[in-house]
Amino acid sequence: MKAVVYKGPFEVAVEEVEKPKVQHPNDVIVRVTSTAICGSDLHMYEGRTAAEPGIVFGHENLGTVEETGDGVTSLSPGDRVVMPFNVACGFCQNCVKGFTGFCLTVNPGFAGGAYGYVAMGPWPGGQAEYLRVPYADFNCLKLPPGNSQESDFILLADIFPTGYHGNELAQVSPGESVAVYGGGPVGLMAAYSALLRGARMVFVVDRVLERLQKAEEMGAIPINFADGNPVEQIKEKAGGQGTDKGIDAVGYQAQARTEDREEPATVLNSLVETVRATGALGIPGLYVPADPGGPDEQAKRGMLLVGIGRLFEKGLRLGTGQCNVKRYNRQLRDMIIEGRAKPSFVVSHELPLTQAPDAYDKFDKRIEGYTKVVLHPQM
Amino acid sequence: MKAVVYKGPFEVAVEEVEKPKVQHPNDVIVRVTSTAICGSDLHMYEGRTAAEPGIVFGHENLGTVEETGDGVTSLSPGDRVVMPFNVACGFCQNCVKGFTGFCLTVNPGFAGGAYGYVAMGPWPGGQAEYLRVPYADFNCLKLPPGNSQESDFILLADIFPTGYHGNELAQVSPGESVAVYGGGPVGLMAAYSALLRGARMVFVVDRVLERLQKAEEMGAIPINFADGNPVEQIKEKAGGQGTDKGIDAVGYQAQARTEDREEPATVLNSLVETVRATGALGIPGLYVPADPGGPDEQAKRGMLLVGIGRLFEKGLRLGTGQCNVKRYNRQLRDMIIEGRAKPSFVVSHELPLTQAPDAYDKFDKRIEGYTKVVLHPQM
Amino acid sequence: MKAVVYKGPFEVAVEEVEKPKVQHPNDVIVRVTSTAICGSDLHMYEGRTAAEPGIVFGHENLGTVEETGDGVTSLSPGDRVVMPFNVACGFCQNCVKGFTGFCLTVNPGFAGGAYGYVAMGPWPGGQAEYLRVPYADFNCLKLPPGNSQESDFILLADIFPTGYHGNELAQVSPGESVAVYGGGPVGLMAAYSALLRGARMVFVVDRVLERLQKAEEMGAIPINFADGNPVEQIKEKAGGQGTDKGIDAVGYQAQARTEDREEPATVLNSLVETVRATGALGIPGLYVPADPGGPDEQAKRGMLLVGIGRLFEKGLRLGTGQCNVKRYNRQLRDMIIEGRAKPSFVVSHELPLTQAPDAYDKFDKRIEGYTKVVLHPQM
Amino acid sequence: MKAVVYKGPFEVAVEEVEKPKVQHPNDVIVRVTSTAICGSDLHMYEGRTAAEPGIVFGHENLGTVEETGDGVTSLSPGDRVVMPFNVACGFCQNCVKGFTGFCLTVNPGFAGGAYGYVAMGPWPGGQAEYLRVPYADFNCLKLPPGNSQESDFILLADIFPTGYHGNELAQVSPGESVAVYGGGPVGLMAAYSALLRGARMVFVVDRVLERLQKAEEMGAIPINFADGNPVEQIKEKAGGQGTDKGIDAVGYQAQARTEDREEPATVLNSLVETVRATGALGIPGLYVPADPGGPDEQAKRGMLLVGIGRLFEKGLRLGTGQCNVKRYNRQLRDMIIEGRAKPSFVVSHELPLTQAPDAYDKFDKRIEGYTKVVLHPQM
Repeated sequence: MKAVVYKGPFEVAVEEVEKPKVQHPNDVIVRVTSTAICGSDLHMYEGRTAAEPGIVFGHENLGTVEETGDGVTSLSPGDRVVMPFNVACGFCQNCVKGFTGFCLTVNPGFAGGAYGYVAMGPWPGGQAEYLRVPYADFNCLKLPPGNSQESDFILLADIFPTGYHGNELAQVSPGESVAVYGGGPVGLMAAYSALLRGARMVFVVDRVLERLQKAEEMGAIPINFADGNPVEQIKEKAGGQGTDKGIDAVGYQAQARTEDREEPATVLNSLVETVRATGALGIPGLYVPADPGGPDEQAKRGMLLVGIGRLFEKGLRLGTGQCNVKRYNRQLRDMIIEGRAKPSFVVSHELPLTQAPDAYDKFDKRIEGYTKVVLHPQM
Repeated sequence: MKAVVYKGPFEVAVEEVEKPKVQHPNDVIVRVTSTAICGSDLHMYEGRTAAEPGIVFGHENLGTVEETGDGVTSLSPGDRVVMPFNVACGFCQNCVKGFTGFCLTVNPGFAGGAYGYVAMGPWPGGQAEYLRVPYADFNCLKLPPGNSQESDFILLADIFPTGYHGNELAQVSPGESVAVYGGGPVGLMAAYSALLRGARMVFVVDRVLERLQKAEEMGAIPINFADGNPVEQIKEKAGGQGTDKGIDAVGYQAQARTEDREEPATVLNSLVETVRATGALGIPGLYVPADPGGPDEQAKRGMLLVGIGRLFEKGLRLGTGQCNVKRYNRQLRDMIIEGRAKPSFVVSHELPLTQAPDAYDKFDKRIEGYTKVVLHPQM
Repeated sequence: MKAVVYKGPFEVAVEEVEKPKVQHPNDVIVRVTSTAICGSDLHMYEGRTAAEPGIVFGHENLGTVEETGDGVTSLSPGDRVVMPFNVACGFCQNCVKGFTGFCLTVNPGFAGGAYGYVAMGPWPGGQAEYLRVPYADFNCLKLPPGNSQESDFILLADIFPTGYHGNELAQVSPGESVAVYGGGPVGLMAAYSALLRGARMVFVVDRVLERLQKAEEMGAIPINFADGNPVEQIKEKAGGQGTDKGIDAVGYQAQARTEDREEPATVLNSLVETVRATGALGIPGLYVPADPGGPDEQAKRGMLLVGIGRLFEKGLRLGTGQCNVKRYNRQLRDMIIEGRAKPSFVVSHELPLTQAPDAYDKFDKRIEGYTKVVLHPQM
Repeated sequence: MKAVVYKGPFEVAVEEVEKPKVQHPNDVIVRVTSTAICGSDLHMYEGRTAAEPGIVFGHENLGTVEETGDGVTSLSPGDRVVMPFNVACGFCQNCVKGFTGFCLTVNPGFAGGAYGYVAMGPWPGGQAEYLRVPYADFNCLKLPPGNSQESDFILLADIFPTGYHGNELAQVSPGESVAVYGGGPVGLMAAYSALLRGARMVFVVDRVLERLQKAEEMGAIPINFADGNPVEQIKEKAGGQGTDKGIDAVGYQAQARTEDREEPATVLNSLVETVRATGALGIPGLYVPADPGGPDEQAKRGMLLVGIGRLFEKGLRLGTGQCNVKRYNRQLRDMIIEGRAKPSFVVSHELPLTQAPDAYDKFDKRIEGYTKVVLHPQM
């Protein structure tokens, strides 16, 4: 079958690889109809991780069940399903508590697994014609039959739940004000989720005009950090105390505000200043314990200078970590079905799988409006 | 009346000062019978804050109501009461949500007030014969009449709730394992609270033998960090994943493990390693945004190198900030009354107010077993 | 001053009564500009309570501060404020926990007080030119100056928070389906709140066409119980399991579905059938321990036949009781200010105080579209 | 193999039945070493359910894995395991949320399954030499090897988690007072759990002296309802307001206080009076929607007269339903391993399987101290 294979820094190719087979009674094989490129795929694409050539990318996957193992109970060939990017067993100590992003079974020696991602276990990605899904009863979420709303449903694999997760980590409740740093797909989904949850005032901080425009279109307040310190801009609009809550949808590759370089803790420290005393921060944006490309020795080891003194003085709480997609995907799916959520506004391109190399290139360069690409292997 | 007055670095004196008066209808004047010296008083005593000479110390106060303002509803002269160290109004946005440590009324321009503490508002301390308590209906907790269990009840002003708060911030639940860094009075109260809440395994990390011995006597597992890396010692005993939860009862004046110098983030970073993925950290230990005596330029501004990469990878949550004493003091009081809690085991000395200068000196030097001193102004 | 005085069953009059004075340092006197008639006022109006003639009605009050007691801190003459219907002290055991509907101070011997209501303490109502508000710093919520959005803000006194409270009791979370029984003002506010909180599907059950129409206009699904068993109607639309959550906005004066008589437990038991296993019920609708007009001996004593067997089998949770308005009114106010909530669509009439007798009569008879009347004493 | 087979009202026999086999890749076969008789088995034994002769009893099971299906990941022959009484799939909508007592998969058309119980699905019980466990990775909880603490661990199948569940439903938190109605095994486990969680004052209401004595021995306060109204007895000891929380560990077969007859709602209504306003009730005690032996027509249909008026007036919350054992069994297991919990004090008899008929007879008659019987099929 055809799949998107990593060849080395800044290079992927669509190549023939072996079609996956049922290897365990709880496996299913899914015929992939939609698979998205994620911003985190670019970390590997740019050669900024330990990913070796040969890996098949793709952790945002949707398709129809092609074949089921003997132990599968709730799925039948033909069912349309979307899978969380996390691979999870459903029965370990962490899965049972709902921490499916920290499964202790699927990636031995580590808490958490994913499809098509370096160091996340032996699970080939879904930017391919077919995908093997283990523990399929647990990992597949059924969708309505047919192909309706496919560009909404594909976002249930990662970015819609991840944006929502930012709100859960920050404990956003109705009527609150929220500052979201980062207007990329996850940031937009975080802001969108905040509004769905009843936040009264949602700020989106970025400097890319298209992103700020999308933020405004959905009802958020755009803050262009090129126009001045975002903390001050937000405080001016939200009252002197700052917002009730904050979400970091940027992570460690944050850009310095006024210079062209990375400043990994700038978003974190801006959030500490942006959010009022007694508030909370949700940090779905990625921070890593080892970043060979980091700007200094400490950053290379994932150690950042954080304003702990201010954080403590303000009595802030914070939550971090990968999204436990399974906690949220059912209810978000139901909101899509009922027409209460329509997250596909972030999708910029829908392309055949064969155009993946070009799409990676343009998405990485953030040109021609490539913000969120969905590939269709069966197109 | 007599009061403990700060004279300058390493010097306090018992001097005559003006007796407080009712200044507002919601005030009461309390005749102080017990008032404790807190580890945080030493920050001022050592000249490591902006405290000016002349301030009356004392934020852990207990006594009997002497006089009530015209607006006081629930208190009468003769009532025995203990006051949270936080001064709080009871009606601002934060107090109403239970964040009484972040009152917006009592210390204008800042979130939070306290008695006898630099930058915490215009509220003289209670290491004195009398104390003015504002918003008295809200700030006084009634105690049984008489003078029974006074050395337990005095701990309701700060360290027992603060230790308990560490558990709330870390969301310690029954059956969990907990690592408490710091075996001083707050650390011991944190460990004691963890056990009261049903934790199955509680570690206390310190290197002072008396503290480790007290930890062991109450049912915790002592970890002497002079004997080796505490993270490894705990993981060996708690299973390779680490503990479910962690509490930082040390704060920014943490000592480096193997050298005689401060290493402000060492406890924080050790906790990140000690606690297992999906866990949570409670940080009642003090971190400050400005520390003129800090070991480097960043530390002086409250900026510390924190292992954010690992924190994120493990999906940890953390909570910080001063204790909202009023959230907990009623139930902890009731546990004392019923004999279910007896925190006074941490009290090492009970002395007349006049011995305050000597007590400060010895407590600061940590000599002669001075771990927790209660002063009795009426003795 | 002029006030609405209860004269006896089915009779109120606008009469001259003594203008309230500051009686305690924490009192304020409010010049009432808006005061609403509540469905629960009709219980007294109809003579179905122990209310004695002479009582001044009115627990939904908004106005400007006219005079402040010496102990008032945060309010000044001229401030526009809205008061929760609950009178609360702010410092008792229950108020401190946020249960301001169950204050132990303001109505000795009972948990909870209110303005202008039988058995709820010595607090005259606000259907009058002036109102005395005790513990004013705690009980007044400041509004923007002027008279903008007055018909939205007046609903913060009771029905908007009460509807919202139904959702809190039922723990409604984003993406859930909710069945609201009762399409009166509280039911409409409950459904509206559910939608604000992100519910995906909200049903409103009633048989009054105007109510069902308003429900539909706001995005809820109307269920006319005159058309058939509402449980079956809802299950057909929501999937066979039923809704995730349910809210009883009717209470003990529920009407039998097919006959013209009261059947006090019918809504409760319908909800048990409507909500799926593991769900939860919020019961803001009033049930009383003594109802002299109840349809049988048991109902007169507040004892109703409830399907406890089914409730248990389905593992349902339920929450009851009067709304603790102060828990919600600030954030709901802020949603109104930001234009995220506009609850005034339920207001049917705005009238001068002098028209109160006619308004009570028509509201009680549910004629001429009288669904929610706001009186303006200064008009 | 040998198994306890229901023959008809008041009769069980130990008979040869077919040994279970692996029928699905996720099954394991467990060689049962301990299996307890539950109070709820007596409902079937007494002929008070629709149970047909032939059913093998036993839902509290512990043993060693004998054989594993091809899809089993985490278990190997020889592992000692204890199973929740609930049979659950681990992947349905309810299991994923932790509501494993309401699994939608294992008992089609109903929410919830169990071993050896009428209407709870096709799962033979474990009062037998062997037991088939489906979805074994999810349903088995591993124990330390060997046979240590077996009489503690067997209680993890049902009554220890069920007692704990009562506390979760009532949201019992440290320092609270709790009234537990019923001093049978579940009631004692509820009181024991309350104390483990840090409750300050726990009452156990019963009239059986041995039970009251056990309650007292563990630190609870015994209330003999034969000595007078338990509500008044408790209020006298707990302060006039009543307890903070209450637990119903009796259910629908409650005895009238002063007469020898069942009064199904008496415990529920007593709890409403016992618990103070703003409190909460946990109801793990069983109520059923159909009780052919109920004392009146309504009770036969699970409809009971409940003091809803008082419940509402006090603003009480309540939670009901079967325990989701898997939510709690890991942490309770760990407390047993660490010696922090030792629930086996409720076990009165340990017998070979062959003595089951005699044990049922005596347990049902509550004679000779038969309070909790553990059978050992391999003895």
